[in-house]
Amino acid sequence: MTSVWFDPDGSINTVPVDDRGLQYGDGVFDTIAIRHGRARLAHLHIERLRLGCERLGMQVPPAEKLLGMLDAAIASTGCHGSGVAKLVVTRGSGMRGYRYAADSTPRILLGIFDSPLHARDFWTRGIGTRICNLRLASQPALAGIKTLNRLEQVLARNEWQSASIAEGLMLDADCNLVCGTMSNVFLVSDHGLSTPAITSAGVSGVMRRHIIAVAVSAGLTVAVEQVPVQRLAECHEVFVSNSQIGIWPVRFCGARPYAAPGPTTQRVMNLLADSGIEECRL
Amino acid sequence: MTSVWFDPDGSINTVPVDDRGLQYGDGVFDTIAIRHGRARLAHLHIERLRLGCERLGMQVPPAEKLLGMLDAAIASTGCHGSGVAKLVVTRGSGMRGYRYAADSTPRILLGIFDSPLHARDFWTRGIGTRICNLRLASQPALAGIKTLNRLEQVLARNEWQSASIAEGLMLDADCNLVCGTMSNVFLVSDHGLSTPAITSAGVSGVMRRHIIAVAVSAGLTVAVEQVPVQRLAECHEVFVSNSQIGIWPVRFCGARPYAAPGPTTQRVMNLLADSGIEECRL
Repeated sequence: MTSVWFDPDGSINTVPVDDRGLQYGDGVFDTIAIRHGRARLAHLHIERLRLGCERLGMQVPPAEKLLGMLDAAIASTGCHGSGVAKLVVTRGSGMRGYRYAADSTPRILLGIFDSPLHARDFWTRGIGTRICNLRLASQPALAGIKTLNRLEQVLARNEWQSASIAEGLMLDADCNLVCGTMSNVFLVSDHGLSTPAITSAGVSGVMRRHIIAVAVSAGLTVAVEQVPVQRLAECHEVFVSNSQIGIWPVRFCGARPYAAPGPTTQRVMNLLADSGIEECRL
Repeated sequence: MTSVWFDPDGSINTVPVDDRGLQYGDGVFDTIAIRHGRARLAHLHIERLRLGCERLGMQVPPAEKLLGMLDAAIASTGCHGSGVAKLVVTRGSGMRGYRYAADSTPRILLGIFDSPLHARDFWTRGIGTRICNLRLASQPALAGIKTLNRLEQVLARNEWQSASIAEGLMLDADCNLVCGTMSNVFLVSDHGLSTPAITSAGVSGVMRRHIIAVAVSAGLTVAVEQVPVQRLAECHEVFVSNSQIGIWPVRFCGARPYAAPGPTTQRVMNLLADSGIEECRL
């Protein structure tokens, strides 16, 4: 995979070893889809990134600065098509010890990557999923934001190697469904759409937010709620979402098969495609 | 604070931006006291560091390699007195995404720092402590080891600024005492010593392990157990421990005063001093 990294002054290959992002995972990041040479839903991503900085008590970089870096980096790579932008904001360089200086200057890093290659089938016929063994810890102080503390996701994603499984679904200690290792999850039942509330674990995805907005605008019901894992056995359709993929219907989770895409998932994918998430056009 | 960083090839100032330690906190670290130009309890620290690598499914660097780096780094800084060595092992450089290559080569980093300056009073008259607001999440998969995911400690340590508080004690969601932000904690009651079991959160400190061994050898009772926060109101003495300080008696926690050092804490400090942790000599 080709990648190029930038800081506000230009391209970089390294960061100072005393960066608190490296030393403590003290920072946040966001992954943004580039389509037709533009950062998609950039304002929503930057809003979440800045919220993360605020939650961690970091200085919050101005939105215009982050948007400007995105534009400049995409332009300088000559990317006119698809790609991935990864914005990282750390608390910057610091001394040893957990205590930080109130005036520490955040370090902003931006990576531009090739788009990952996924079979078209993932959209048109759905993906295989499994329930991860690792349970997400409950930490309300960090829930919702995308911090650089991602060991739970690393361990969960590496529980399986089989290419027939594209995503793992994660539960909390009380057997509630929370999210995928790199996605949010929606269930479809007779009552409409349902997605786990992200209050004590998990990332509140930009695409999840966009899907909820688009679905509600179209008259669909979306319940944001506690979702016990048993609901996976009772619902008709399941799909996962993230910024790079839009939506992938779930064809099975463990031994449980689903229509993929089922009629409601198809409808949401079409709504999403109409809103500019074009890979969801079936 | 002066610091110098090394990798196995020599001194460094930076790390590659694609290091998974920076991107995901995907790695472990350990902080070792240097006294008289030697790494103290080095074998125990390296054992824990290697256990951490194993728990994360990383390749485990050979102990001799880590010990050799420690010796070489201390020698090259000309440190004949006291200091701090921080060993960091990340999963190394990687592509975007939580999945890692089974053969990824860990990156080993070693920082040598000046010793932090603490008032002698901290040992002889004890420290002020408080209970942190942030609760430690329960994550058995990561409990005990010292990973680069340290945002909980960063947030907890920055809850207070007052110099009269040297450490914050942390609870889990069930109001059990777990540890300090940078230390382990022991309570002294009529039943002997007690320290929280580190099974679902917290770091299993090398000094904690050494204290338990030294105390048990001297005929003291040490219970490693669940410690409800109420026990802080019932016990006679409290002390915290880590590799740099040995033991600090606790003079108060919030509004609750303690004898500092109380008779049992004094005895353990003397035992520790006799075992080579010389700053505990009262």
